Amino acid sequence: MLKKDEMPSIPTLEDVARASGVSTATVSRCLNAPDRVSEKTRKRVMKAVQDLGYAPNFGAQALAAKRTNTFGAVIPTIENAIFARGLQAFGEELHRAGVTLLVASSSYDPAREEEQIRALVARGADGLLLIGHDRHERCYDFLERRQIPHIAAWVYDSGCDRLAIGFDNREAMTALASEVIGLGHRRLGYITAEIVGNDRARARLEGVKAAMAEHGLDPDTLIVRGTEYSFQEGADAFAEIMAQPNPPTAVLCGNDVLAVGAVKQALNLGLRVPQDVSITGFDDISVADIVTPGLTTVHVPHWEMGARAAQMLLQLRNGEDRPDSVRLDTYIARRGSLGPPS
Amino acid sequence: MLKKDEMPSIPTLEDVARASGVSTATVSRCLNAPDRVSEKTRKRVMKAVQDLGYAPNFGAQALAAKRTNTFGAVIPTIENAIFARGLQAFGEELHRAGVTLLVASSSYDPAREEEQIRALVARGADGLLLIGHDRHERCYDFLERRQIPHIAAWVYDSGCDRLAIGFDNREAMTALASEVIGLGHRRLGYITAEIVGNDRARARLEGVKAAMAEHGLDPDTLIVRGTEYSFQEGADAFAEIMAQPNPPTAVLCGNDVLAVGAVKQALNLGLRVPQDVSITGFDDISVADIVTPGLTTVHVPHWEMGARAAQMLLQLRNGEDRPDSVRLDTYIARRGSLGPPS
Repeated sequence: MLKKDEMPSIPTLEDVARASGVSTATVSRCLNAPDRVSEKTRKRVMKAVQDLGYAPNFGAQALAAKRTNTFGAVIPTIENAIFARGLQAFGEELHRAGVTLLVASSSYDPAREEEQIRALVARGADGLLLIGHDRHERCYDFLERRQIPHIAAWVYDSGCDRLAIGFDNREAMTALASEVIGLGHRRLGYITAEIVGNDRARARLEGVKAAMAEHGLDPDTLIVRGTEYSFQEGADAFAEIMAQPNPPTAVLCGNDVLAVGAVKQALNLGLRVPQDVSITGFDDISVADIVTPGLTTVHVPHWEMGARAAQMLLQLRNGEDRPDSVRLDTYIARRGSLGPPS
Repeated sequence: MLKKDEMPSIPTLEDVARASGVSTATVSRCLNAPDRVSEKTRKRVMKAVQDLGYAPNFGAQALAAKRTNTFGAVIPTIENAIFARGLQAFGEELHRAGVTLLVASSSYDPAREEEQIRALVARGADGLLLIGHDRHERCYDFLERRQIPHIAAWVYDSGCDRLAIGFDNREAMTALASEVIGLGHRRLGYITAEIVGNDRARARLEGVKAAMAEHGLDPDTLIVRGTEYSFQEGADAFAEIMAQPNPPTAVLCGNDVLAVGAVKQALNLGLRVPQDVSITGFDDISVADIVTPGLTTVHVPHWEMGARAAQMLLQLRNGEDRPDSVRLDTYIARRGSLGPPS
């Protein structure tokens, strides 16, 4: 790092204008509305920007242009792969539109999510991707007051007016649980993440219970263990469930990370999957196919969801008509971890 | 979203001061130097900030305080788990210090990384985490001119003066390759990511060749396949290597994602691991223990690396003495995927 007295002066907008032989207004247009400048001029100006190491004064620029070409996303976790693919798709689509994506991870903590939403807006985010609808009304007030376009992904709830792209978590899990019950399973276990503040987790649990009720099973007999999302936590919860006096013949899991942990634990316990116990996941992330046997799980169209969320948010940011919320389809990806009870 | 004419007015610093009964200078201190305000005052002011939905004007605030309590990280990929754990640790440690982390993913594209570094600085990042040392000198000029503290992680190179925390990628891979060769393997394969612009990948490949030379094997006999980091790409590269007329008895991989793909492919091809072919990884991320057999791999202390990177960067940001670069130790995590050739 240079000491203060060795520090070269910070280049200004005027320096860039001088170096590229255009007006400061043109430089500003190149930075804020590049589609309104000829390709040739833009290239020359951007070369000067790079050569001089110019960075726009974010305060002045944001105030002048009201557009930073930066979007934010606040996701619950970066450590496991649940959101990774959808987020990558979201970022790629934004990149194509010249928008930089900045991501914050809230560790499933609502207070931290709120801080991060504020930080991203304070740092000039033009648009925000959020996961699910569960958050304090204050967060929405905050965003609406500032007219920051935002969209919820990983969720579709026809009863909610907020803009969203996702799938019906409840219905998707009901479909999978119905398939499990249809194979003859009567005693079921379920491993879930914390359902407070997580509408997706809550809807999936409800989905299992709905399927049980539909098929004449008592939803109160479902053996439920709540835990955090990691392979190890899934493994531990599975061991607890199987230590019951009359253990279930099928254990459904709220996501693939938990389910993969459960499959590994089954092998450790000397249980064959699916002959001794069936295990299912939710998400169809890449590890679902890595574990042996592969997971039967709900396939979520992560890439499509992320890419379309970006398109919808760009539409809003560009002042076009507000798009409708989008409901995506899921399907059951059938692999070896689910079979009839023996 | 509210229409313009329904939009409530945006609350100002003055509104917060009025609501909490303190001066605007005190509100400003609460936001920018909370440790200089009494807990009681801070709580009252922060409640008013929340109730009113106040967000500091980032331009004015940054100019006044020169501290945004936001750090950035630019990582090559968010889609696979290589950087996830270290990044989570980095974020947790920053969170404890009241700093919000914003993450950008460059998709291993140097031009995009440069854009993201600029965007993070333009958005007011007080400090930056970068992965490895490989980037255009221009990026460093840019950061130094603005005195933005930065640190490289996932790399330790005693020949480089830049601040870093990491491990010796070359030496760690040499140790693993020596163990492979020590078991009697003579024909080796290697699957690597693109080595241009990736000093870690380059050093690991060099490490394998160094071990071969040390043990009297000709490094030119190493069968190398370059690919992208994904399970599928690792699987495809492994199939290509094993389709050689005289296939290797051990295939080392530049990271665990590639190695897990290779193990799955071996099973598809009807090859037993390690009896027919040994496979090793690098990183010891959680999937290393999910695949069957488990991966023998280089264990990297991801959590420690991320947490200490945060501490070092905070030290710099706080104007304390520049810390020394840190070299972390790695070790070989031995699981079932490596055995003697049969």
